[in-house]
Amino acid sequence: MQLLIVNPNTTASMTQKIGDAAERVAAPDTNIIAVNPDKGPRSIEGYFDEAMSLSGLIAEVRKQPDSDGIIIACFDDTGLDAVRCMTDVPVIGIGEAAFHMASLLANKFSVVTTLSRSVPAIEHNLVRYGLASRCAKVRASEVPVLDLESDAANARQLIGAEITKSIEEDGAEAIVLGCAGMTDLTASLSAEYGLPVLDGVACAVSLCEAVVRLGLRTSNLGGYALSVGKSL
Amino acid sequence: MQLLIVNPNTTASMTQKIGDAAERVAAPDTNIIAVNPDKGPRSIEGYFDEAMSLSGLIAEVRKQPDSDGIIIACFDDTGLDAVRCMTDVPVIGIGEAAFHMASLLANKFSVVTTLSRSVPAIEHNLVRYGLASRCAKVRASEVPVLDLESDAANARQLIGAEITKSIEEDGAEAIVLGCAGMTDLTASLSAEYGLPVLDGVACAVSLCEAVVRLGLRTSNLGGYALSVGKSL
Amino acid sequence: MQLLIVNPNTTASMTQKIGDAAERVAAPDTNIIAVNPDKGPRSIEGYFDEAMSLSGLIAEVRKQPDSDGIIIACFDDTGLDAVRCMTDVPVIGIGEAAFHMASLLANKFSVVTTLSRSVPAIEHNLVRYGLASRCAKVRASEVPVLDLESDAANARQLIGAEITKSIEEDGAEAIVLGCAGMTDLTASLSAEYGLPVLDGVACAVSLCEAVVRLGLRTSNLGGYALSVGKSL
Amino acid sequence: MQLLIVNPNTTASMTQKIGDAAERVAAPDTNIIAVNPDKGPRSIEGYFDEAMSLSGLIAEVRKQPDSDGIIIACFDDTGLDAVRCMTDVPVIGIGEAAFHMASLLANKFSVVTTLSRSVPAIEHNLVRYGLASRCAKVRASEVPVLDLESDAANARQLIGAEITKSIEEDGAEAIVLGCAGMTDLTASLSAEYGLPVLDGVACAVSLCEAVVRLGLRTSNLGGYALSVGKSL
Amino acid sequence: MQLLIVNPNTTASMTQKIGDAAERVAAPDTNIIAVNPDKGPRSIEGYFDEAMSLSGLIAEVRKQPDSDGIIIACFDDTGLDAVRCMTDVPVIGIGEAAFHMASLLANKFSVVTTLSRSVPAIEHNLVRYGLASRCAKVRASEVPVLDLESDAANARQLIGAEITKSIEEDGAEAIVLGCAGMTDLTASLSAEYGLPVLDGVACAVSLCEAVVRLGLRTSNLGGYALSVGKSL
Amino acid sequence: MQLLIVNPNTTASMTQKIGDAAERVAAPDTNIIAVNPDKGPRSIEGYFDEAMSLSGLIAEVRKQPDSDGIIIACFDDTGLDAVRCMTDVPVIGIGEAAFHMASLLANKFSVVTTLSRSVPAIEHNLVRYGLASRCAKVRASEVPVLDLESDAANARQLIGAEITKSIEEDGAEAIVLGCAGMTDLTASLSAEYGLPVLDGVACAVSLCEAVVRLGLRTSNLGGYALSVGKSL
Repeated sequence: MQLLIVNPNTTASMTQKIGDAAERVAAPDTNIIAVNPDKGPRSIEGYFDEAMSLSGLIAEVRKQPDSDGIIIACFDDTGLDAVRCMTDVPVIGIGEAAFHMASLLANKFSVVTTLSRSVPAIEHNLVRYGLASRCAKVRASEVPVLDLESDAANARQLIGAEITKSIEEDGAEAIVLGCAGMTDLTASLSAEYGLPVLDGVACAVSLCEAVVRLGLRTSNLGGYALSVGKSL
Repeated sequence: MQLLIVNPNTTASMTQKIGDAAERVAAPDTNIIAVNPDKGPRSIEGYFDEAMSLSGLIAEVRKQPDSDGIIIACFDDTGLDAVRCMTDVPVIGIGEAAFHMASLLANKFSVVTTLSRSVPAIEHNLVRYGLASRCAKVRASEVPVLDLESDAANARQLIGAEITKSIEEDGAEAIVLGCAGMTDLTASLSAEYGLPVLDGVACAVSLCEAVVRLGLRTSNLGGYALSVGKSL
Repeated sequence: MQLLIVNPNTTASMTQKIGDAAERVAAPDTNIIAVNPDKGPRSIEGYFDEAMSLSGLIAEVRKQPDSDGIIIACFDDTGLDAVRCMTDVPVIGIGEAAFHMASLLANKFSVVTTLSRSVPAIEHNLVRYGLASRCAKVRASEVPVLDLESDAANARQLIGAEITKSIEEDGAEAIVLGCAGMTDLTASLSAEYGLPVLDGVACAVSLCEAVVRLGLRTSNLGGYALSVGKSL
Repeated sequence: MQLLIVNPNTTASMTQKIGDAAERVAAPDTNIIAVNPDKGPRSIEGYFDEAMSLSGLIAEVRKQPDSDGIIIACFDDTGLDAVRCMTDVPVIGIGEAAFHMASLLANKFSVVTTLSRSVPAIEHNLVRYGLASRCAKVRASEVPVLDLESDAANARQLIGAEITKSIEEDGAEAIVLGCAGMTDLTASLSAEYGLPVLDGVACAVSLCEAVVRLGLRTSNLGGYALSVGKSL
Repeated sequence: MQLLIVNPNTTASMTQKIGDAAERVAAPDTNIIAVNPDKGPRSIEGYFDEAMSLSGLIAEVRKQPDSDGIIIACFDDTGLDAVRCMTDVPVIGIGEAAFHMASLLANKFSVVTTLSRSVPAIEHNLVRYGLASRCAKVRASEVPVLDLESDAANARQLIGAEITKSIEEDGAEAIVLGCAGMTDLTASLSAEYGLPVLDGVACAVSLCEAVVRLGLRTSNLGGYALSVGKSL
Repeated sequence: MQLLIVNPNTTASMTQKIGDAAERVAAPDTNIIAVNPDKGPRSIEGYFDEAMSLSGLIAEVRKQPDSDGIIIACFDDTGLDAVRCMTDVPVIGIGEAAFHMASLLANKFSVVTTLSRSVPAIEHNLVRYGLASRCAKVRASEVPVLDLESDAANARQLIGAEITKSIEEDGAEAIVLGCAGMTDLTASLSAEYGLPVLDGVACAVSLCEAVVRLGLRTSNLGGYALSVGKSL
């Protein structure tokens, strides 16, 4: 099966990291294609970046018409609804993937994301997906997306501090890391803090493989009615 | 005061209609500038069209840096959050404007929109805004956006039929018309059906004037932190 | 247009303050009539005072049958539903006005009110209006209503302390001041704390002008069916 | 124990009926005092009547300072919060009493009340009490309160028709009769329709006896802080 | 009237304590039968213990076919729905009893229970009953169930510390003690902290007496359809 | 990987059907072990059957300590929380599996289950999982579980009729079949009605494989703290 993973920002090193994380969890017969747009925001931190990334994201999806499944590798699930109107193959956002998986493992989870400015968009998604009641709190580590690579040790420490608070103050039983760039931290954080720590990229790849194998497809009856060829 | 009204679709006749509706309710000293992008969807019906309209919408906002307030004239409130990250002047969507105003006049309202495919996006907005509990039902008249102009008599009849059901089946005490293209129907429908019928364009103009006059501004502390000059 | 503003308590100096605040934001052709009952509670702090103020409030409304819009100038929106059953002109409470306006400017707001005893009534209104999910927290400054005038410096300091907590602990992006007597503090607090600070009186006047200008009226179909001449 | 039951409307025959219903279910050592104000609405149908009944209701409560518990015998629970600020004895509304008791017997209940105009007030109470999710639907039989006595046979038929719909369309497993004047219909409707049919007066008397016997009292810490002697 | 109280754990000393508490509040003509299973968990702390107690609980109910009402004396309301499918007499859990009664006395209550592991089950019940919005917080005192007897002084101190936090941090106006083994602490804690402190056993006995006296019965129409003789 | 699938009822032919359905979707290297208890209800229809199946269910789980993942093959997710307290391997219910997967494919889904008596238990699970807002309606086909095998043609017709209503009346974009015994109907119903039709068994197998492959485990920190060796 061929899975298209679109990183909606233009930072190729992050796309590489995402692609590597996907390869690590993908089945042997899954072909991962990880791409990013040429133009658009270098990182997605809040609503404006989301909007500015959509044209590029949609263009990348169009370039790969043979995908069996599509993953949107931004924790805000940018453009998720729009891409579902382009196809009947499964389309999964890394944010929703992590929320749904965490709900199978724990009564409540907390999210640890990058900046405060990203918190409302994540909270809105949780409300829309119905899973707000499963999320104890969305916490900002105040680590900018691009610092996850340039200053990794400090980033890990700040994220760890929020995990501690999630356990002690929120009653969280699992942690969702709220940025595609945190994908390499899950195993060591889980071991250190003694609870499941989930990364959206890994969750989305496995979930998407599962949905594709079951032969399930995006419903194009209603809100995701096909728009291709319609409006441009 | 100068109010910028952006119709995010590219149908100039609809922009004209929206501008006229705005002029009718604007104060004498309000200068209405109604624009639409050159490129993008001709109508916005669902998530894909929303996404495809964003670049054009944002470009139009950038062209008018002297606006005292900005109105997004698509009932889905397309790009509302993104535009709020570009400025500290008030930014108001015609959907939210109508929902808030209807909440001041009635215990519950119903929405009558165009196609079924647009219903989920409206329902999601209502949930996000917190006003889902005030909305009895979102109903589709199955009138395509562009037919509102080309086949107006039939459109009015179909919309009227949904208003009747809203009153009898939903317990609605007011009606929100769910498309910028329905703006010229409010007065006659209100008279015919005996309850307030609200159009988002008129509501947004008056609300925006009110907010501007009070000197209130978009909060740029948190989710709407300014993104200008950041990511492109 | 003539707007009737009823302060439901009997403290004339507060009525004067409210009237002045209304005049400052009203349009030149708006005629503000600010009144209070002769008999009833001197301040409204909680449910009992609310109930005891209703007869006087309704009597004042009856004295002004030519109003184009009516504003209830108590943050608990005392008697709002009842007055809507007396008329088809718009009737707006200062609490709901501030909540709706804040929802247009910020993802979430906090309320800073007077005493703890007033908190549950405000929380109940937020739930009823549907806007509880937009309010991060209702905070009490523990400043009694009448101390807002007699000990203004101390009051401002206590209110400011709660604004700081709202930003740091609640993630609030805007502040709603929860008492008609705080109307003169908005501008300086907004400047000091760097986020929108809203006063219900100003919000209600502007909103009411907007609704009246649009020709919208209270729905008398359903819960607000006219009761005049019915039951006494 | 002495229980004060205040019918907030001025129709003495209804007070008599309420008092009789209370006597039928009260324990032998419970002394029922059923009263109504001299002045105020003859029936309470909607928000305006509620407001107009409050002065009279509070005056009646004041006349009986030796009550061990107080019941407000209007299905809208008019003045419930206000009376709780006057005393630390238990104060129970017949609406909430029926909602809570029905929640102990059935997964979901429907309410059958008098007029459509009363529905929003009941829905608001359900939301406030937290029990909206337990109520399948609030239905209006369109029987005016005073017709319950003058045209009883027709009233029973209309109410029965709504019970049938509640079972078939709402999935209701119990019925709450939404008016103090329906108190004599419960047994025969329950037998005819084969599910619990609850009357608020009976529920409130038994609940109030239970609370009084347990020595529990209204909390005066917070929203129900005592207001007596304060504001008039 | 005969009330069957089933303690679903096998600790006879706790059954004795529960029975004594029930006797103290029961009416003179109420015959309390307090029992526990022979086999099963010695205490119920979380989901697994709940499941393991059900066979024994159901067997005890079957032994007493002449009960007029049944009380399940575990704060998790273990098996409540199942027992309602065995009979049409009222069946009341001590958790729900306390939640409903607290809702009649206070705007909001907090729960103080034993261990953190029990918190999610209680929170789930609150959501299901509809009363989550009335509960400010479920707090764990970290006192194991059986220590309530063996180390009572320390237990009382830890519970008291959580009550203080409930008042100061949660805005709780009443306290529900979240374990049948805390039943002897209510009076002294209520006196010390100045707010209603409720015990589920006492609440359930009084509520059950009230329901039985009213002649109300469990609805067997729908989710509680009788299962006796069906599936074994 | 070894997956244990426990059918909590004692009907071996249904266990066979469930096992076959699981084999069809499982990966080549997944070893499916499908079992049922010897004693307990022959079918699970409502709360009582759920309770009576728990001992047998838990005993079956104990017999297979080497499972890498556990699936509970009853649509009510009977015993899900309890089994999670026995292990740190993933434990997934077929109900939750289908709800989460449907949420990835459609804005809203409807559930078509067997009998009306099963509806409230499913609704309660949806509320608890947070996904009630994603479910348009839970519908009963009034086909008893065991008739799914004995009278398959009629069953399919009744289920189809509810699917039609789900699309036309509920606005459902996907269908979840609400019984493990319906597992062989998904493909043909999906083809006939033109929208995704999901079966919990298939969804749970694929989801469980995904979670196991990711190395994620049930959180034993909090509500699912290990109970093994504790209370018996």
